Amino acid sequence: MSKLLIVGTVAFDAIETPFGKTDKILGGAGTYIGLSASQFDIESAVVSAVGEDFPQEYLDLMSERNIDISGIEVVKGGKTFFWSGKYHNDLNSRDTLDTQLNVLADFQPVVPENFKSPDIVMLGNLHPLVQLSVLEQLERPKLVVLDTMNFWMDNTWEDLMKVISKVDALTINDEEARQLTGEYSLVKAARKIADMGPKYVVIKKGEHGALLFNNDRIFFAPALPLEEVFDPTGAGDTFAGGFTGYLAHTEDISFSNMKNAVIYGSNLASFCVEKFGTERMQTLTKEEVHQRLEDFKALTQFQIKLT
Amino acid sequence: MSKLLIVGTVAFDAIETPFGKTDKILGGAGTYIGLSASQFDIESAVVSAVGEDFPQEYLDLMSERNIDISGIEVVKGGKTFFWSGKYHNDLNSRDTLDTQLNVLADFQPVVPENFKSPDIVMLGNLHPLVQLSVLEQLERPKLVVLDTMNFWMDNTWEDLMKVISKVDALTINDEEARQLTGEYSLVKAARKIADMGPKYVVIKKGEHGALLFNNDRIFFAPALPLEEVFDPTGAGDTFAGGFTGYLAHTEDISFSNMKNAVIYGSNLASFCVEKFGTERMQTLTKEEVHQRLEDFKALTQFQIKLT
Repeated sequence: MSKLLIVGTVAFDAIETPFGKTDKILGGAGTYIGLSASQFDIESAVVSAVGEDFPQEYLDLMSERNIDISGIEVVKGGKTFFWSGKYHNDLNSRDTLDTQLNVLADFQPVVPENFKSPDIVMLGNLHPLVQLSVLEQLERPKLVVLDTMNFWMDNTWEDLMKVISKVDALTINDEEARQLTGEYSLVKAARKIADMGPKYVVIKKGEHGALLFNNDRIFFAPALPLEEVFDPTGAGDTFAGGFTGYLAHTEDISFSNMKNAVIYGSNLASFCVEKFGTERMQTLTKEEVHQRLEDFKALTQFQIKLT
Repeated sequence: MSKLLIVGTVAFDAIETPFGKTDKILGGAGTYIGLSASQFDIESAVVSAVGEDFPQEYLDLMSERNIDISGIEVVKGGKTFFWSGKYHNDLNSRDTLDTQLNVLADFQPVVPENFKSPDIVMLGNLHPLVQLSVLEQLERPKLVVLDTMNFWMDNTWEDLMKVISKVDALTINDEEARQLTGEYSLVKAARKIADMGPKYVVIKKGEHGALLFNNDRIFFAPALPLEEVFDPTGAGDTFAGGFTGYLAHTEDISFSNMKNAVIYGSNLASFCVEKFGTERMQTLTKEEVHQRLEDFKALTQFQIKLT
């Protein structure tokens, strides 16, 4: 069974959307990636840190889904990373109201012994130096995928460039790809990112789907058109978890299988946004995912007659 | 051979994009639809009006592509419809600088005798009463497709509702679909539009592709990711010409063939935006279109393994 090592925040989120508002709920890139990847028959582990205020039931929730949590350090006397944000009416943009790094401010990650030779690594949103430190503890995996955010471009540019140069694939949203490269055209942006290191570039466009680039090849996975997006939080991380989880499960990192992986990522993300936070991902079954794959086929596959 | 009747402006455009600026050049919905549909082995005719200032070479250009121009009235002493616009840096939005209806202000369309029983009708952008008048001159075609713009929603709402209630399909862009229905979700907007009459709804999202709706079925055609969009003018009309031209050519208006038709529309539109105005469409060959279809397949088709 393939091993997927996940790095990312495990956190509290407080979210406000046009549909409602939550108190502190379970969130964080590592959490969403882990829950998403747990849809596949793989071994996965999350490396992160939380404070003493983090409820045991949240950790149990991950354990019950066969996610190895021995790499999640519980810091004595520490407080868990907290993010709060408010979405605008169109749900395509949001304001960050508060970010408290807390125990992640000076986090020294320790990769569990049994995950030091993972097949695939998913470096989710966290300080680039934490991502680098994890890579340095590993034997070279078959595939290293990085996700990052504008925050690290603004504050830790050089560290970010270092980690980008060491990974095989980058997943990033469209606005961030433009910020990273100074290119408006996503085709040009993807080429510039490839020049920084990653052979594979996935640009996530939210409700407009995701583009996968490799050399001159491009593949496009649409987002499923939904009646209502309830809460977009975690959709990008859920996508990344689906992408890497599928690749780990199928043990095939060819470009043609990466096409399937972005479809799977898009599929899982389409569930994530149906409820607040991780709620939908906690109840999601393999049967529901398979059924929605049929929707993705109907949405995109055609048999054209030449004219 | 199937007959496609096209209604729409034949006009002068003056366009400014970040890449340059044109004087008065050939433009208009009817022109773009006609040029696009001329890629197919069908009989087509354009119904419109121009002024005496309209160059004969523009009319010849259409005739040479086997477009019947006997329904384009040349109004003595009249001036041709003129539109000028300036695109913003992202090319996704534009300001209209000038609109002069001129001969189209009180245009009474006359459908040529040999096009009074067309197989398919494409009612491109024009006053809803002109679109209605054309329909009233026809034996019921197999398929009537309507395109419209925010201008007619703002100024001729009731007439627009009348023509919408009489057509089989509506092609409309995303912002206009939202304006027409008051729904932000395009899935909900499409359903509301279907309640107004059209069984088929195509929502054009520019660089983000196009969605085809029919009852609970949805199909998505991506836009081809391009390094540079040079001039988006006419892309939506070119899409409509490809959509209806393909349906006329294949003589098959089933939903599964409409999937192919939106792919063809998206394919042709991807050429249109490569140069200013109609320039690219004038030189486009069938071989180029067929080759780009392969790009669309590579971009969207996948063979998924279930997990």
